[in-house]
Amino acid sequence: MNQLRVNRVVELMKRDGLPCILVSATESVYYLTGRWISPGERMLALTITDRGDVRLFANRLFMQQAAPDLPLTEYDDTEDCVSVLADALPEHIGALGIDKRWPSHFLIRLMEKRPDIRMKLGSAPVDDARMCKDADELSAMRESSRLNDEVLKKLMSTVRAGETERQLAERYVEIARSMGAAGYSFKPLVCFGANCAEPHHDSDDTPLKEGDSIIFDVGLDLNHAMSDMTRTMFFGEATDEMKRVYELVRRANLAGKAAVKPGARLCDVDRAARRVIEEAGYGEYFIHRTGHGIGLEVHEPPDVSAACERPLEPGMIFSIEPGIYLSGKFGVRIEDLVTVTQDGCEVLNQLEIPSFAE
Amino acid sequence: MNQLRVNRVVELMKRDGLPCILVSATESVYYLTGRWISPGERMLALTITDRGDVRLFANRLFMQQAAPDLPLTEYDDTEDCVSVLADALPEHIGALGIDKRWPSHFLIRLMEKRPDIRMKLGSAPVDDARMCKDADELSAMRESSRLNDEVLKKLMSTVRAGETERQLAERYVEIARSMGAAGYSFKPLVCFGANCAEPHHDSDDTPLKEGDSIIFDVGLDLNHAMSDMTRTMFFGEATDEMKRVYELVRRANLAGKAAVKPGARLCDVDRAARRVIEEAGYGEYFIHRTGHGIGLEVHEPPDVSAACERPLEPGMIFSIEPGIYLSGKFGVRIEDLVTVTQDGCEVLNQLEIPSFAE
Repeated sequence: MNQLRVNRVVELMKRDGLPCILVSATESVYYLTGRWISPGERMLALTITDRGDVRLFANRLFMQQAAPDLPLTEYDDTEDCVSVLADALPEHIGALGIDKRWPSHFLIRLMEKRPDIRMKLGSAPVDDARMCKDADELSAMRESSRLNDEVLKKLMSTVRAGETERQLAERYVEIARSMGAAGYSFKPLVCFGANCAEPHHDSDDTPLKEGDSIIFDVGLDLNHAMSDMTRTMFFGEATDEMKRVYELVRRANLAGKAAVKPGARLCDVDRAARRVIEEAGYGEYFIHRTGHGIGLEVHEPPDVSAACERPLEPGMIFSIEPGIYLSGKFGVRIEDLVTVTQDGCEVLNQLEIPSFAE
Repeated sequence: MNQLRVNRVVELMKRDGLPCILVSATESVYYLTGRWISPGERMLALTITDRGDVRLFANRLFMQQAAPDLPLTEYDDTEDCVSVLADALPEHIGALGIDKRWPSHFLIRLMEKRPDIRMKLGSAPVDDARMCKDADELSAMRESSRLNDEVLKKLMSTVRAGETERQLAERYVEIARSMGAAGYSFKPLVCFGANCAEPHHDSDDTPLKEGDSIIFDVGLDLNHAMSDMTRTMFFGEATDEMKRVYELVRRANLAGKAAVKPGARLCDVDRAARRVIEEAGYGEYFIHRTGHGIGLEVHEPPDVSAACERPLEPGMIFSIEPGIYLSGKFGVRIEDLVTVTQDGCEVLNQLEIPSFAE
């Protein structure tokens, strides 16, 4: 158990007026206990009270290793796990803060068994603690992005006409493995030409041809530290429109980074990047938020969007990834991870973003 | 939209007294609409009323293809998706059946915005419809398991001393791909020796040595039809204890299959398999349910466990996978997929289960 992190969560529970929370996400349980448990559809719950009492509820399938420092309630597949939990929760608890992704069927059944408990959103204490990375996490995140830089640089040097999106995506995994990464943070995404205009296209058997844009959106999972970066290149000669759009996105990416400093808000970062694209008349083609937090998960709080007025704090890590998507033609997205420092921003990705401006 | 399937779901909503349900699982939305949308952390919701009105709520990121037959409400990253949904749900709706895995934060916020609606568990109509496969699904599931048989047979013929679990797991994927499978239904699991005694061990760099048990637990995703099969073999000479335990598990697997026919209950299948192991004194080492439903998901209803008294119906597909796990020594699990027929059971896996009994 990481007592410092638990203490921080308890502080934040008091801030939020939560006497007890239920943590269910694998990553959050790992963050607090050092135990990585992927329960599939089975129930996993770590309860924490505002007095610092911690208890893990887990199927005995996942508990074959002893856990001397962690109070544990096991159940098995013949038991009703929600009844086990409902019986163990203190009386007169008042309210219970629920992990945001806890599957609804557990929550609805717990509400039926414990109508005395008021169910509230309860992810903020753990999410907020996880949002500002400590020194160990920062160094792991730097290392994951450094390796991601190297892998993508090598991949980009291998691109040949006629290869498919899928082949390049698979080669990313091969190169990553040969350089020491055990896994990726999300299935690597390589898009060519008009497919680049679909932000959630899946890499397929489309072959690369002269004049295509290529988007590489890739990241590694290095000991639970995620990386995530996007680069766009043009295969062969880029048209004037391609160059213009690319430069806009590059400038939007730089403007986003320049806006990062403690005290600025996440929506200010979104605004700074978006303004560059809007002022050039392409606002309607930048159809997603500017970025997302990242750490143990590839998408985690905070949200870098117009809707998020949270101020930046040192240790936050998030992506800045403006894009322009011209349906049926091509797309450009350029993404880096940044961490907020005491007085500005450290960019975790060092892979060059070439310019057409010179 | 698959109108036959929607009609069946509406029937089952009436059975359950649900005036409206909210379907959020990617697989369920695909089952009903033919659209595969993986929304990540964004909200995806298909509402169905008991009059058959269907509406999809989705982030516009995922809606770049036209959907003329499907009423659609789009939102974007700057909008509060739960408000959009809360505003669109009919007044005087009474109760709303919620998809079992809908993340709690959507549900808790919807409860706050629509305190007039009683939230109930609402997965049963879609789960029950999905549980009994139609002819198209049956033939896709047969094909997925047939290919899984071939891939594993080929993999088993390549096993050599000194290879690691991870190498064999990766070779499964290579062989699968060379035989035409696009993906796997779950990360293939290969375990050696004492690792076989941990049912949820992850394949690692353990090398294979003489006298090891080997568990292969593998499956394919063939156009959204999942397969899943386990075979155990011994590398080199098996001890008498290994042979005895293997024969027990093999007989438990056969006893489970023999118990499958319409009208029997799922717990009867569990009992039939478990009894063989219990009567030989190994009951405490069979630490999980006998099996799970499978189809669009690798784990889906029904549950083949002591807790499930549901009667078998033609078209159900589930696994029968008894196991014995001797901590620190070895483990054996043997798994096949079966489908319930009009008068018994069709086994989807044809890969031989060798015996030591002869």
